[in-house]
Formats: sequence, structure tokens, C-alpha cells
Amino acid sequence: METYRKTFAVETKGEGDLSDITEELREAVRTSGMTEGLACVSVPHSTAALVTLEFEPGLQSDIRKALDRLIPKSVVYDHDRTWGDGNGHAHIRSSFLGTSITVPFHDGAPDLGTWQQVVLIELDVRKRRREVIIQIVGA
Amino acid sequence: METYRKTFAVETKGEGDLSDITEELREAVRTSGMTEGLACVSVPHSTAALVTLEFEPGLQSDIRKALDRLIPKSVVYDHDRTWGDGNGHAHIRSSFLGTSITVPFHDGAPDLGTWQQVVLIELDVRKRRREVIIQIVGA
Amino acid sequence: METYRKTFAVETKGEGDLSDITEELREAVRTSGMTEGLACVSVPHSTAALVTLEFEPGLQSDIRKALDRLIPKSVVYDHDRTWGDGNGHAHIRSSFLGTSITVPFHDGAPDLGTWQQVVLIELDVRKRRREVIIQIVGA
Repeated sequence: METYRKTFAVETKGEGDLSDITEELREAVRTSGMTEGLACVSVPHSTAALVTLEFEPGLQSDIRKALDRLIPKSVVYDHDRTWGDGNGHAHIRSSFLGTSITVPFHDGAPDLGTWQQVVLIELDVRKRRREVIIQIVGA
Repeated sequence: METYRKTFAVETKGEGDLSDITEELREAVRTSGMTEGLACVSVPHSTAALVTLEFEPGLQSDIRKALDRLIPKSVVYDHDRTWGDGNGHAHIRSSFLGTSITVPFHDGAPDLGTWQQVVLIELDVRKRRREVIIQIVGA
Repeated sequence: METYRKTFAVETKGEGDLSDITEELREAVRTSGMTEGLACVSVPHSTAALVTLEFEPGLQSDIRKALDRLIPKSVVYDHDRTWGDGNGHAHIRSSFLGTSITVPFHDGAPDLGTWQQVVLIELDVRKRRREVIIQIVGA
């Protein structure tokens, strides 16, 4: 059993920006030299999220609209009353979507479907530099 | 430290079909021969999801209704405008619920409560054959 | 490669009570003596949840309000019709938020941001004693 770790940064373009990081995950699993185990993709942030999504323009638009409907910016957030940074909705969206995804791998490749990408969602109201951690344990 | 892997297929009956796969997880942990570690249950699909849920008929109905309220089919999805397959809502529901659950285990049994089952949700608009992967790392 | 396990109980004060359990996670990773791997935090319950959240009073209020808007108590749940325990909404909220979070760690510390805490949410309608499991695999 071994561990392998890779970190990288993503410069996001602001609220609703989506980044497909599947290839970084595939590359990390390959480079680890392991054939079977678990790969955890994680972001140490409270206004970003990770989801699996078919990364095509229609669904990129649909997930932004779903977030606007479900956890709207127009609601008054107590967070914003205190801190005035206008990103209360971004924090709540992050809690609902989650900031960590664990994917099994086998034969040196993650168990992801053809139409299933690992996607970083920028939820904050401005451009951010996001750190992504891929931590692998296996053999 | 070791790894153990089990895959199996579930033939779903179409949208909203729920399958309790807890016994498959228990069996995988037993068969692995390990006593302690992590078991990751994952589906390589973009229109299905995994949740923990008390698997009784009332809640099976309630989670279907909650999905219909929160991410309705009646909304126009950009995915459907492009691809015409009428399952845009299924993709978005999958992103919100998630496609992977990691459960610790101890003494050869998953740490799940009595009223906490691992449930596969079919979100797509038709019958599908779903692959489930259980990947275990531990000792 | 090794495994390490820690369990502890949290006495919650009832619906909407939030407990920051980040320090217990940090302590578990330190005590494990491992430097790199995965730490899974899990609750074996169907009416509680784990999220990452900036643990400040504004957002504590905001996440309670978001749950009330998205999965309201005022809806009639089929679970309650059968069992009469009035916590159908709590079960559905738990399925949407999730009961397990996996966090990578490195240099003996979890990869969590400064404003990113691991938070247990009591969703049930009464005080409960909740078990939390932290299971670590790594080296």
C-alpha cells in the first residue's frame, strides 16, 4: 500500500465558472503507479464546490440556473449582514454541493463514466485562485 | 494494508426507482477479510445517484417528491434543447445528490445505522443497467 | 500503511443544532501518527448530516433557513403518515446533505481551509446522542 499526492491551482473567472479537472485526476492516478485504490479530490475552500457532471455547455448553464433557483442571491443572508462580502449564498451552496469527491480506481484509471466529469464550481462573487488536492491511497 | 474490489450491475425500472444495495456492501466488507478501513461505493453514471436513506416506502415516496419539487422536470433545461433526450433534470439531480459514498468499516462491518441504508437512485427517464463499484482499502 | 479509528459522541440540543467537530478531526489525524492519507468522518444516522461550513453565527442561521426553504417541515411527508414521528423532513434533508465526508491529510494535518469547518447538523426534531466515527487510512 502506498500514498500519492498531487496539488494544483485553478484560476477561476468568477461566480459560476466551471473547470473540468478530470484529466488532472486521470494523470494523478497514472503517475501514482498504483493499480487499485481510492482517489480523493478535495478543495480547501468554503465558497467553491466539486461535483460530477457531464461537462457540456447545456448542463453547465443548467447547473448555474439550478443554483440560482435553489439558493438564490436575492435572499438576505445573515452572513452578509455581518461581514458585508455579499457571498452568503456561495457559502450555503458549497455546503449543499460538497467540497470533496472520492472516486475508486482500477487498472490505473478512475472509475468514471464517459459522460461523468469531475468539475470544480466557483461559487464566490469574484475571481479566485483555488487549490485542488488529489490524495490517493491504494496498491 | 490491502485493497478489495467488487462490481455488480443493477437493472433499474426507470425514473425514481430505488435499490437498496446495503447488503452488497456488507457482503463486500465481509469477503474482503479486512477488519478496518474505508469502503467507497460509486456509480460511473451521470443520471443516477447514491444516498443514505432509511429504506421504507414512505421515505422512498418522499425523496421522489422532494426531487420533483427542487429540480423539476417542468423547467426547460438547456441540455434538452441541445440533445433532446429529455433528461436534463436527471443530470442536475445527480450532481446535487452525488455518485459516490465512502463508509468506514470496523470489525468487518460497515459503520451504518440500523435505519441507514445505501440506496441507488435511478434518475434517468428510462430503464437502465447501472454498474456499482465497491472499492475497499484497509487492513 | 496503517489504519486508525476514533469514535466519540455528540449530545445535540435538537433540530438545527450545529456542532463544529473540526478539532476532533485534527486531533485524530495527529494521534494516528500518519503523515499522509485519507480521513473519513461519518455518522451512522439517518436524521443527521455532515457538511463543511464556515462556522460563524451568520452562516449557522443561513443554513438552517436554507433547509427550511428547500425541504420544509410544512410539506406532508409519507414517512410521517406511516410512523407519526414528525421527522420526515429530517430524513430527506440528511439524504441531500450526506452523512460522510472524506478529507485528505498531509504533514499530519487535514487539508481544510481556514474558513472551512467540518460541522455536524442535527436534523431530528428532538435532542439526540450522535455517534461520530473518524476512520483514517494512510502512511
